[in-house]
Amino acid sequence: MLCDALGERALAVREPGGTPVGEQVRTLLKDPSVEIGPHAEALLFAAARAELVERVIRPALEAGRVVVSDRFLDSSLAYQGEARGLGVDEVARVNEWAVSGLKPDITFLLALPATEAAARGAEDDRFEAEGAGLQIRVQDAYERMAAAEPERWRRIAADRDPAEVHGEVLAEVESALAGVAA
Amino acid sequence: MLCDALGERALAVREPGGTPVGEQVRTLLKDPSVEIGPHAEALLFAAARAELVERVIRPALEAGRVVVSDRFLDSSLAYQGEARGLGVDEVARVNEWAVSGLKPDITFLLALPATEAAARGAEDDRFEAEGAGLQIRVQDAYERMAAAEPERWRRIAADRDPAEVHGEVLAEVESALAGVAA
Repeated sequence: MLCDALGERALAVREPGGTPVGEQVRTLLKDPSVEIGPHAEALLFAAARAELVERVIRPALEAGRVVVSDRFLDSSLAYQGEARGLGVDEVARVNEWAVSGLKPDITFLLALPATEAAARGAEDDRFEAEGAGLQIRVQDAYERMAAAEPERWRRIAADRDPAEVHGEVLAEVESALAGVAA
Repeated sequence: MLCDALGERALAVREPGGTPVGEQVRTLLKDPSVEIGPHAEALLFAAARAELVERVIRPALEAGRVVVSDRFLDSSLAYQGEARGLGVDEVARVNEWAVSGLKPDITFLLALPATEAAARGAEDDRFEAEGAGLQIRVQDAYERMAAAEPERWRRIAADRDPAEVHGEVLAEVESALAGVAA
């Protein structure tokens, strides 16, 4: 939706996925029947991310496009670093190496009360299956990251009409693009 | 063969593999039709290694067993760190984190002239398919690692009768075990 509004200049990607390796890793990570330890989970996300950056995101940025990614490095810091207890610094180091230091210009936190987020979470995957405890730890981690780096993060209240949320996100993006317009 | 000689106390594993995640990663890594960048390749090996250590190797060591692994962390340093040019220090850091610092007591380098190694390399996978250039860089890296840490490495000339090579490896292992015998 955001990308439709931005037109041809924009490219939408999602994590994990978007490359042959990434889609296979996605299938593995989302399979509730496969037990995966926290280190391997973090490393698999980082592998998918490395491919997405190398093959898709970096070439698009070099061509002057705007890339909108559904999740990125911070999701690993929240899920594996904080909620799984691996440590944010270590997970950050592995991931910064994986993406050769690429960082988003803007990161949106779409903030929802945990109960409403749970009601909307329809995906029947390993992460949803772990229930509210994991989700609350993840949410806390995102809130802390957004508060710690306000120049990059935009916290958007998402318990509203989707069109209103979309309008606010789009306005933020257009304002940022105006600052770097060709 | 080594494990047969050591009896029930020994457990043989191979990398990547040995766990549900590891076997799926193995299939992905060995598939010559899938293009994988160097960072993702290193991270996938590390993910498989993390699972193998957590679910198989560490429990076996805690039960007092001897674990013999066909390849381990040093293979990533040679292949991804040196031969792929990612840097040994960075690949080491990711992997030491993946295995929570576990290190082999003994590492065997079975040294073969490159031409003979190529003739024996019957596996039709991504690594063999890249040919002699990669294998020579890998071999150089192993030789340097073995020379730099002689207290852990045992360099065994492998261009001999297999029974002779086996006997030498077994003698080294038995001598090491005698030093820590219960």
